[in-house]
Amino acid sequence: MSTTIINALTALIDFSDAELAEFMEALKPRKLKKNDFMLEAGTICKSMAIINTGGLRYYSITEKGEQSNWFAFEGEWLGDYESFLTQQPSLHFIQALEDTEIFCLSYDDMQKLYSKGIRFERFGRLIAENLFISTERSRHDLANLPADQRYLNLINRYPNILKRIQIQHIATYLGIQPQSLSRIRRNIASKKN
Amino acid sequence: MSTTIINALTALIDFSDAELAEFMEALKPRKLKKNDFMLEAGTICKSMAIINTGGLRYYSITEKGEQSNWFAFEGEWLGDYESFLTQQPSLHFIQALEDTEIFCLSYDDMQKLYSKGIRFERFGRLIAENLFISTERSRHDLANLPADQRYLNLINRYPNILKRIQIQHIATYLGIQPQSLSRIRRNIASKKN
Repeated sequence: MSTTIINALTALIDFSDAELAEFMEALKPRKLKKNDFMLEAGTICKSMAIINTGGLRYYSITEKGEQSNWFAFEGEWLGDYESFLTQQPSLHFIQALEDTEIFCLSYDDMQKLYSKGIRFERFGRLIAENLFISTERSRHDLANLPADQRYLNLINRYPNILKRIQIQHIATYLGIQPQSLSRIRRNIASKKN
Repeated sequence: MSTTIINALTALIDFSDAELAEFMEALKPRKLKKNDFMLEAGTICKSMAIINTGGLRYYSITEKGEQSNWFAFEGEWLGDYESFLTQQPSLHFIQALEDTEIFCLSYDDMQKLYSKGIRFERFGRLIAENLFISTERSRHDLANLPADQRYLNLINRYPNILKRIQIQHIATYLGIQPQSLSRIRRNIASKKN
């Protein structure tokens, strides 16, 4: 198992070697080619994935077209956590931004891990808390911040994102046209000079 | 302890009588008069509250004025969960919509409960998961749904909300002017007839 995955798991809980081995046994590797789908709208999200290499884009299709909601890269978890928790069909797509290797934890295997002891339950609580914080910040920013500030927050979080994501996906994440994003980037560049 | 609180706690976990007694010992009652603040922006949210009677409004102040983000009533938990988890100052206000009785669980008491056993950890995980689902739905709706659909979702969730919340608070929750909300309500009423 890769150090990326081990580091991501032990960053939250100081698992014993035996617990870590149990966790890793539950994680099933899956390779996605660039543009492959990990999840398509209308299907149930049966696994949460932790990314070993590559990146994923989480998006929905609305009247306005594709709407990017989230991006995730190495060492981060992604899935439609709502669909996964409720086992109801997802409204979202998850697509590989580049060739990507993920490790998948199924709903049933996750429930089995939770029943194995308090540290697995705590891991699940901390994951849920962290996802809550991420989603709440995203909701807050969407409701309260202008597009240029949301753009700055995104590139602070992922300094290399412009090299890895097509500009139109960033524009739909910000809820603006690609030409508005170009203007925002020019304004930021001119302020730096 | 009120049946509202007991029902809310045992809806998630079938606590034993001893566990329930431990939980209740950690909950501290607090009475708020209408318009009293449970939380003010710039302060740390030190407790999560479960509502016994009354209702609370969760809002922020932006350039556009007050922006209502959330409402909660009997049997529901509320707090700035992000500020509570990170122990960083909140960006939000929580104000009583009417005379309200809450029971408060402090950060330290919550951590102590978690260490008491797997069922308390599981409770914390389920609370975090449910808050995640609520916030994610709110984020999704804000990004993807028009105001009239978001209004219908709100009144489906709280059928009596129009009797308990001033119309301008509902308008800021929807991100529209009160007169636009009046138009939406007229349109919905005319479709029903």
